[in-house]
Amino acid sequence: MNGYENGYYKEITPSGFGICIKSKGVLYSEQSPFQKVEIIDSDSTLGKILTLDDLMMTTEGDEFHYHEMIAHIPMMHHKCPKSVLVIGGGDGGTVREVLKHKTVERVVLCEIDGLVIEACKKYLPTIACELDNPKCEILVEDAIEYIKHKKNEFDIVLIDSTDPMGPGEGLFTEEFYTNVKNSLKEGGIVAAQSESPFVNKSEIKKMYDLLKKVFPITATYTSNIPTYPGGYWAWAFCSETVKPLSYFADDRYEDILKTCKIYNKDYHNARFALPNYLKELL
Amino acid sequence: MNGYENGYYKEITPSGFGICIKSKGVLYSEQSPFQKVEIIDSDSTLGKILTLDDLMMTTEGDEFHYHEMIAHIPMMHHKCPKSVLVIGGGDGGTVREVLKHKTVERVVLCEIDGLVIEACKKYLPTIACELDNPKCEILVEDAIEYIKHKKNEFDIVLIDSTDPMGPGEGLFTEEFYTNVKNSLKEGGIVAAQSESPFVNKSEIKKMYDLLKKVFPITATYTSNIPTYPGGYWAWAFCSETVKPLSYFADDRYEDILKTCKIYNKDYHNARFALPNYLKELL
Repeated sequence: MNGYENGYYKEITPSGFGICIKSKGVLYSEQSPFQKVEIIDSDSTLGKILTLDDLMMTTEGDEFHYHEMIAHIPMMHHKCPKSVLVIGGGDGGTVREVLKHKTVERVVLCEIDGLVIEACKKYLPTIACELDNPKCEILVEDAIEYIKHKKNEFDIVLIDSTDPMGPGEGLFTEEFYTNVKNSLKEGGIVAAQSESPFVNKSEIKKMYDLLKKVFPITATYTSNIPTYPGGYWAWAFCSETVKPLSYFADDRYEDILKTCKIYNKDYHNARFALPNYLKELL
Repeated sequence: MNGYENGYYKEITPSGFGICIKSKGVLYSEQSPFQKVEIIDSDSTLGKILTLDDLMMTTEGDEFHYHEMIAHIPMMHHKCPKSVLVIGGGDGGTVREVLKHKTVERVVLCEIDGLVIEACKKYLPTIACELDNPKCEILVEDAIEYIKHKKNEFDIVLIDSTDPMGPGEGLFTEEFYTNVKNSLKEGGIVAAQSESPFVNKSEIKKMYDLLKKVFPITATYTSNIPTYPGGYWAWAFCSETVKPLSYFADDRYEDILKTCKIYNKDYHNARFALPNYLKELL
């Protein structure tokens, strides 16, 4: 069974393999209207761990692998991102990365579960540290409803969702993607977490089939995430007009580079090179 | 404890986290003069697993992630690799990839432990399938001794070793690397597995400090390996004359591409782009 037991946090995917982490116990466990929210105190270099319904969301020790990639790859493709929407992402890591870009005037965090935000502010302060930034507007509400009424409002939309099951399910539909597209300003870009290429092949296929119906430009980029299934993760890059690697914001690069543990220009340029098995799937 | 127990194969690194695989049991377990050799029958998409002293070496389901990278990245940098030495690599996966290159006339496999070869031929035939190829010369002996007497003999040397402890320890010394360099023909290239950038930072640092003393050109490339610590692995690329990405064997590319699950030219070109934390370490 997944979750904490007898000194270990364990999470096995339907593929039959997964991660195991030495742990001291559960620091926080609450049931919200949407899911079980837990903070596990690992006895490892990963530090504290956020889980939702016994699925690992982020760890203090490796969170930068995910948050730098979901934020900077699309942000650096935009000439002047001022207005950014983060859907999900209640841990705050994506907001923290977005706010490294000085052009940003407003980042809206639309997270359905207020308990996730509370737990992360208390237990994961290095991740949630920018949630009180005055440029960050936190909405505890359903992004599916929120996005229906937004037209021509955001330069960047980042879909930092859970997996396509439970509360995140409605974030993987053609209707939702269409509303996301309509919320973009001209030259806008969407990035969306899109599961593990090695483990979640059928989920990825379904997701990209829908995205391609909605966005004229739909690409994929990947990077290593030590604690996610297969150690390897994909994000969708979608836009009506901006092609992958067609623009790089050199004017913001030095500022971003010096704060990042992974992200740099060479790494950025390398992200859209995919393994054969993933190219064939998409 | 690492190894098979109660329906799971578990392997936790000193960092306090690792992999857990549903398993049906141990198919083969023998103690050689060098190490404990086991084949685990996983109950997962990874299929059967080779472990040495309770450390995962390869699995049927994800072995191509490792073998394509250790072989094709250096091989495709060489104009005409005829003579190749594989050190370690008793499972045969690296030999299988090397023999996809039609220029190769001879590949020497120098593996210290004959039991590894026997077990893999019997239990992992999709990996060991080319060990009986007439171009493959198998030597069950210590590569440290073997390489001392070789001068100007190999176009490519692939160090497909275990970790820098136990029988693999002597494969991580300045003397060994010097002998490897001397075994190369003009224009020769070495690739060596160099541990997990996220988990084995001190081991990587030590190894590259030695390699840089010996080889004028020492670079690093990385790729995803689902079952290795952190899901992310590094290889050293060393030569006296050949720089990374200075040559690509277009004449052999179509043949290689069609047989690979990961390797392609874009992926090849992207491999030397490293995360900041690894660049700073090296």
